[in-house]
Amino acid sequence: MDNIDYHIKKIDDVILTHLEENHVSKTIMEASKYSIKSGGKRFRPYLLFAVLDAFGVPLDTGLKTAGAIEMIHTYSLIHDDLPAMDDDDLRRGNPTNHKIFGEAAAILAGDNLLTESFNLIANDRKLSTADKLALIQMISKSAGQNGMISGQMLDIEAENNEISFEELEQIHSYKTGKLISAPVKAASIIADADEKTDFHLLKFADHLGIIFQIRDDILDVTGDVKLTGKNIGSDARKDKVTYVSTFGLDGAMEQMDRRVCLAKKELESVNDVLNIDELKNVLNKFAVRDN
Amino acid sequence: MDNIDYHIKKIDDVILTHLEENHVSKTIMEASKYSIKSGGKRFRPYLLFAVLDAFGVPLDTGLKTAGAIEMIHTYSLIHDDLPAMDDDDLRRGNPTNHKIFGEAAAILAGDNLLTESFNLIANDRKLSTADKLALIQMISKSAGQNGMISGQMLDIEAENNEISFEELEQIHSYKTGKLISAPVKAASIIADADEKTDFHLLKFADHLGIIFQIRDDILDVTGDVKLTGKNIGSDARKDKVTYVSTFGLDGAMEQMDRRVCLAKKELESVNDVLNIDELKNVLNKFAVRDN
Repeated sequence: MDNIDYHIKKIDDVILTHLEENHVSKTIMEASKYSIKSGGKRFRPYLLFAVLDAFGVPLDTGLKTAGAIEMIHTYSLIHDDLPAMDDDDLRRGNPTNHKIFGEAAAILAGDNLLTESFNLIANDRKLSTADKLALIQMISKSAGQNGMISGQMLDIEAENNEISFEELEQIHSYKTGKLISAPVKAASIIADADEKTDFHLLKFADHLGIIFQIRDDILDVTGDVKLTGKNIGSDARKDKVTYVSTFGLDGAMEQMDRRVCLAKKELESVNDVLNIDELKNVLNKFAVRDN
Repeated sequence: MDNIDYHIKKIDDVILTHLEENHVSKTIMEASKYSIKSGGKRFRPYLLFAVLDAFGVPLDTGLKTAGAIEMIHTYSLIHDDLPAMDDDDLRRGNPTNHKIFGEAAAILAGDNLLTESFNLIANDRKLSTADKLALIQMISKSAGQNGMISGQMLDIEAENNEISFEELEQIHSYKTGKLISAPVKAASIIADADEKTDFHLLKFADHLGIIFQIRDDILDVTGDVKLTGKNIGSDARKDKVTYVSTFGLDGAMEQMDRRVCLAKKELESVNDVLNIDELKNVLNKFAVRDN
């Protein structure tokens, strides 16, 4: 197993150990653990480790930060699946959190993962006080009203409305993009990157966020429920605007290829300070994934 | 207007300015602002300022922290009022958040206030990096699974169940107590209190949390809807275990008086380093409030 895979495997331990410490409500602990344990692609931790690796920085310095970002991602899925939101019964092939624990516990488990994500970073002994504070500033911004949460609201409001391509890209850049770029920014903070490297890495991360979303939209049409763990065609049934509904399947693939080229260009610009091979692998994994 | 009142008035500005900065989703901003603007007693900011004042520390050093704690309190009310939780239509005399903005926006506005509370503290220019990190550690612990969230879960699970007095006190010590002691702990961090003072202040804060809860239970029976902004008798209708249902009205009053005595004793222990007059006022306000 390579170094990155090894650290991704450790993410679960980091999160579950934190959730099991001093638990007061067994239900909150179990409901929080349930959604962490239902798997997921761990793309965000992978991304964080891949960038740290490109910098030559020991990966274990990023373990708790990667765990915290995964906790935020997981909370957003729990709340997104609620009857008042997307009303989904299935997530990663398993019943959604509220189907098992009820709506009240699912809302609170989401709140818990969000709150504890900041606690996890704030108590990380491997990072300096200044780094921890910079990470909390950046992650709370990426996850809050200038990031993911506003993207989710815009997405909900776009349902049953005609929206333009620009609006579609804006929604995705907030809804999924900000939490895809967060691990790249986090690695850049931990590695103490220079300004130029930071700049190109963030552009790379922006493309990656869009690539991720286009692939998601394509998988909703062409995916295999056994691999994606999601019901196929749910976007179309909900009349959601997606890359596929806007450009057709071929058009969406073209958009994705264009973004992959642009992202590679950003990497080439920092080839002198970073070992970018692993980051090119990231690109390929994001673009050709089938789950 | 005295110094404390002046700073409590500034809390709204601090929060609303933060929410209005760089807003991406108008709905998220409006829904978040709505619940902040619907008033509330601002007991937690008051408590933080009163303790800072007792230390002789300038109150504006606590403004953003007090705002952040109030944001967390407000998010917990928004989620608590949801149909899947307490299903309340009225809060502070106004329609609850989901009644105005719908359930999805209310869930997201709550998530937003929680996330942005940490962003507000992390970006406070009046505090040192070390203080900000200590505050985020303490507040995330008070609000998370070792604090408020677990208390809410225990409270929900206690409905329709026989629970003991000890269980009742445990629920309240987490559900409301942890976020009542948080502003006291926060002031203690900002004022750099010595160990002995910190110890007695925290005991004072624990009693205060219970006093607050007993008064809440009493007001549910004897309160005036015009002053409390809540429907009277809702605990009894929901068959909730309260201090009043456990001890009767007179018994609950006795419990409260006992706690007020104990809290005063804690204050007398730190009379040498703190100006405790304002903190005795706090006690009186918590015990005799009618809203």
